[in-house]
Amino acid sequence: MTVKEAVTEIIEKKQKDGGIREVYFVGCGGSLGAFYPAKIFLETESQSIHAGWYNSNEFLHNTPRRLGKNSVVITASHRGDTPETVKAAKMAYEAGIPVIALTWSPDSPITEVADYVVSYTFGPDKDIAGEKTVVGLLAAVEILHQTEGYDNYETFLEGVSRIDGIVKRARRQVEKRAMAFAREYKEDRVIYNMGSGAGYGAAYMESICIFMEMQWIHSASIHTGEFFHGPFEITDAEVPFFIQISEGPTRELDERALTFLKKYAKRIEVLDAKELGLSTIDSSVVSYFNHSLFNNVYDVYNHALAESREHPLTTRRYMWKVEY
Amino acid sequence: MTVKEAVTEIIEKKQKDGGIREVYFVGCGGSLGAFYPAKIFLETESQSIHAGWYNSNEFLHNTPRRLGKNSVVITASHRGDTPETVKAAKMAYEAGIPVIALTWSPDSPITEVADYVVSYTFGPDKDIAGEKTVVGLLAAVEILHQTEGYDNYETFLEGVSRIDGIVKRARRQVEKRAMAFAREYKEDRVIYNMGSGAGYGAAYMESICIFMEMQWIHSASIHTGEFFHGPFEITDAEVPFFIQISEGPTRELDERALTFLKKYAKRIEVLDAKELGLSTIDSSVVSYFNHSLFNNVYDVYNHALAESREHPLTTRRYMWKVEY
Repeated sequence: MTVKEAVTEIIEKKQKDGGIREVYFVGCGGSLGAFYPAKIFLETESQSIHAGWYNSNEFLHNTPRRLGKNSVVITASHRGDTPETVKAAKMAYEAGIPVIALTWSPDSPITEVADYVVSYTFGPDKDIAGEKTVVGLLAAVEILHQTEGYDNYETFLEGVSRIDGIVKRARRQVEKRAMAFAREYKEDRVIYNMGSGAGYGAAYMESICIFMEMQWIHSASIHTGEFFHGPFEITDAEVPFFIQISEGPTRELDERALTFLKKYAKRIEVLDAKELGLSTIDSSVVSYFNHSLFNNVYDVYNHALAESREHPLTTRRYMWKVEY
Repeated sequence: MTVKEAVTEIIEKKQKDGGIREVYFVGCGGSLGAFYPAKIFLETESQSIHAGWYNSNEFLHNTPRRLGKNSVVITASHRGDTPETVKAAKMAYEAGIPVIALTWSPDSPITEVADYVVSYTFGPDKDIAGEKTVVGLLAAVEILHQTEGYDNYETFLEGVSRIDGIVKRARRQVEKRAMAFAREYKEDRVIYNMGSGAGYGAAYMESICIFMEMQWIHSASIHTGEFFHGPFEITDAEVPFFIQISEGPTRELDERALTFLKKYAKRIEVLDAKELGLSTIDSSVVSYFNHSLFNNVYDVYNHALAESREHPLTTRRYMWKVEY
């Protein structure tokens, strides 16, 4: 089932009940991060729909009172068995709230507590237009388009049709830089990620899923607008910053942070969405595509870094290994 | 003017226009962090009001389309001159949107672009019931109470009347631990903060405003629910974690993270809201008071750490010193 079909059916069913008023994106770690652009999309573009973005266990324990007959829950679990996410979906499902589950595992536990199961592309050669982040975004776009209407709907779909080509070119474009990065930062114990706007979620994911989880490197994701109100005092010639310069309305924030870093830091790795070709997507929708670009370009760096550090991306000491 | 008076007047004026549908909390760094419980309060308790929580510069560049005649902007700047916050307030003010500004500086620039100026308590002996975080919360509580109604309104105010006594006892309670902490973590280059629920903002503030800004120690604030989906792989016997065990619905998340840390980490500092006396506040509202408790108890640790490291909390290398 496509996410458009799921949304269309939900909206039809909800018509007599007052439609959709709340959309809750619920997940853990990378699956939560992947929903960040969808949440920002609705927060920015919608006139009336409330978008919530919740860690599954937070959602389960600190459940919003308004969760009810005008809500939709959109959740994701790659293996389909993340316990907190399955529980959160179950809670909503049993309350009669439509649940859309994004998963890569067709017969997994999450599919038993979801009204609609949607798959996505995954793996080294995946079509970016079908990846989890884009599917999440398409859910948000369809919901807006089919309720309030969305003027840039066709333009957005045009962007979706371009993203795969852009990302694949950009990945080739950074290959050498990624290898230089891997050599330079091989011994580092701390690497910061920075970003803003709808692309901030990519910085969050790189920080928690790659540096912390897969490389055991200390990290934090710093919003480029927040940087000047605390975090920037950590800056010196030694501390590495991996900064996203996004395309779209918050580019100015990222550029300002970069200007500062160029003056006071020495070890900066820049991912510039414009230089990486994202600007061929129309400016009215481009910001929502930063995440897919950055997230997939980081991947080239991640493999190079893992090789250079001789610390495979699959190495874990706790995840799936011990009880927690 | 009190925040209740400001809210009452706004609601009266908005009555013919369809009331309040969106509340935007807008600020930078610590001023943004202070609004976190207010945002969570509306997200959790309200049936219809959308709560936005924005860094000022993000708000200015990535402005939500729904910002308009049914919106209220609540902003804060301690000195009243944070450039991005003044600009964001000005943008809303000039569009005719009611702006409430929390500031400690009565004649500062922010007061010129705000319809309502509200002050708060500050400094070592401040009345916690009047501090910025509680004033922000009271704005949210009054908005809910005067629009949809809020069943726990009186109970919430009863909590406000208790918080100062609780915090002041808790501060004395941790004095010795804070000194031990300051000795133990004197040489550390990384300290993580952890938390969840409405109190998570206190972990964010401690991480960016104290460890990074005032002590130049690497840090990140990790949500205890997100911990198991990436960040926990960083855990070992050497890495220090400062963890908030909150009172209220997400306590289970914090306790789970602590159980893990007790098994695999060795250097853990625990702030337990229950042990620190917060449970005398009714369970229906207690979660919203975690932030004020933790934030003000951290302060005892911060002074001890600054002294032990001979790095005063006022030391800056960039903030207010260079152009940025």
